Amino acid sequence: MRFWAVVPAGGAGTRLWPLSRRDDPKFLHDLTGSGASLLQQTRARLAPLADDRVLVVTGVAHADAVRRQLPEAVGARVVAEPSPRDSMAAIGLAAAMIEREDPDAVMGSFAADHVVADEAAFAECVRRAVAVAAEGPLVTLGVRPTYAATGFGWIHLGAALDGHPGAYDVAEFVEKPDAGRAAAYLAGGEHRWNAGMFVARPGVLLDLLADSDPAFAADLRAIAADPTLLEEVWPRLPKIAIDHAVAEPAADAGRVAVVEADFDWEDVGDFSALAGLLPPAASGPRVLGDPDLVHAVDADGIVVPAAGRPVAVVGLTGVVVVDTGDALLVTSVEAAQDVKRLVAQIAERRPDLL
Amino acid sequence: MRFWAVVPAGGAGTRLWPLSRRDDPKFLHDLTGSGASLLQQTRARLAPLADDRVLVVTGVAHADAVRRQLPEAVGARVVAEPSPRDSMAAIGLAAAMIEREDPDAVMGSFAADHVVADEAAFAECVRRAVAVAAEGPLVTLGVRPTYAATGFGWIHLGAALDGHPGAYDVAEFVEKPDAGRAAAYLAGGEHRWNAGMFVARPGVLLDLLADSDPAFAADLRAIAADPTLLEEVWPRLPKIAIDHAVAEPAADAGRVAVVEADFDWEDVGDFSALAGLLPPAASGPRVLGDPDLVHAVDADGIVVPAAGRPVAVVGLTGVVVVDTGDALLVTSVEAAQDVKRLVAQIAERRPDLL
Repeated sequence: MRFWAVVPAGGAGTRLWPLSRRDDPKFLHDLTGSGASLLQQTRARLAPLADDRVLVVTGVAHADAVRRQLPEAVGARVVAEPSPRDSMAAIGLAAAMIEREDPDAVMGSFAADHVVADEAAFAECVRRAVAVAAEGPLVTLGVRPTYAATGFGWIHLGAALDGHPGAYDVAEFVEKPDAGRAAAYLAGGEHRWNAGMFVARPGVLLDLLADSDPAFAADLRAIAADPTLLEEVWPRLPKIAIDHAVAEPAADAGRVAVVEADFDWEDVGDFSALAGLLPPAASGPRVLGDPDLVHAVDADGIVVPAAGRPVAVVGLTGVVVVDTGDALLVTSVEAAQDVKRLVAQIAERRPDLL
Repeated sequence: MRFWAVVPAGGAGTRLWPLSRRDDPKFLHDLTGSGASLLQQTRARLAPLADDRVLVVTGVAHADAVRRQLPEAVGARVVAEPSPRDSMAAIGLAAAMIEREDPDAVMGSFAADHVVADEAAFAECVRRAVAVAAEGPLVTLGVRPTYAATGFGWIHLGAALDGHPGAYDVAEFVEKPDAGRAAAYLAGGEHRWNAGMFVARPGVLLDLLADSDPAFAADLRAIAADPTLLEEVWPRLPKIAIDHAVAEPAADAGRVAVVEADFDWEDVGDFSALAGLLPPAASGPRVLGDPDLVHAVDADGIVVPAAGRPVAVVGLTGVVVVDTGDALLVTSVEAAQDVKRLVAQIAERRPDLL
């Protein structure tokens, strides 16, 4: 069973401004101090599974940067979207391309800006998902929750699947819950986080789409058959997430399975999440970058000295300092979510800084 | 009665790093957003009193910068100290120069890095001090305390002086008190802050010095008589503050008076003091510099965007952000005193940044 990996590389990373920018989004950044960008880490994580059968789908503005980070030798094909049309169009186009090239394959979709440290556990989980998907259903990976997250959708587990330990029918996808419901999901043990990772035969995915929107699926297949149609057809594709276009209706129809994922997963949504990914310092704040640039007295939190300038912090707990060449952000781990409000303000006053 | 002003321009402003630097100390900076440096403001405050009879005493490293800030037309003479030898040598040398040139004059000494907003009240107070000093004593200005400061020395008022309303004998100079004593001084009403502003006939000042250290006074007078001796004599002058060398022993001998100073006075010792000097913003932090560079959400404190880069602050109360071209400091108004500890650390690790 040949496996193809699709890597949607999009998303603004708004709450990681000014580290993540419109023209330099977070998937292009090394956010873990590993020396590799999130995109490169994602590619490396998929290598044992997909070899060179990797399609990165990204905005035309980022295609060159993606190609620079994933040179020929790494073996990833880059599909450039003429404009952002959400995840169904991006993943669906890749599915249509794979369906033409390798109709018996199974594909999986994994965002370019997520972090999974345990590559072996990830690979094992995807292999189990592929085995399930080979039998027909759309398969999602359900991450074992570690806290009562209100920032993700959740998956309600249904009946266990025969012959596939750790795999279940999906009873229901649940939208981002409030704190009370999230706590109940966590305590109940019947829910998993929806990390947006889908595994399926490409034809299954497109047929499920065709059930709800036949024209959409036909358009994607038309572009795959004749790439010169891309510019003409793309602008009329619906802007919709794969969750709403396919996963939720298919779950209602009993055609989605979930495989339990027991690896740590992080979508690095804000600076609080970023802080959790960095190794703690012996004393002082965690540093993404050169620790010799950071001078601290009675302070912790996270410092990103990306401008190469010395950064000094004194007497602050949980501070966040992001020093880039043309903009500086100072906030706290606690206020990390409010960076979104700041970015809205900057969009009005200084859109050039986004 | 001709009045001469002496302006010692020294002091590192350690707790204002990285705004104040060894090679660019705080008196050369505009710290109030007025458009003029503290030195220039000091010069302007003295103009109605001393006209062009102003001597600025500064380190040889800063003499050129001082001359640039006080061009010929402003009429200040700059005396360059070959090395730092504390305030007695600096003020004493100026006294010796004035004694030769204008023996009947009265002089006053006013640090280049203090802020006094009410120039009229300042001038009126100095005129009263000059009237007292003309009759013989060394006169100090006693600032009416506004809080129980532990960071300044205090002056214990003695008997009122006949014919000089608001003037008293100095009963005693008190070293920086602990919080309990400072509170008692504030409540008792018999103490004033010692702001280090002295007024006297130059000959009186030097004779008082000669009482405790005849060689020191003789050396200063020798340099004034023959400036070519400066390089040879200067290095052997004692490193001592004028308070210890002259003011305290003279007070014990009943030869020091104090004139009450009712103007707001600020020595801008740290970023907390600096924040108090800046006008409050309608919302968000106070800004020293271009307010258009500062973007804030749920934040107050003080931002100094001296590098010209946009600075964003989110969700922080009393934050201090000082962004300079080659170093960045993030702290809080509360921790302002601890910048001294940071500077000690940087002195070890990156002395080039001081």
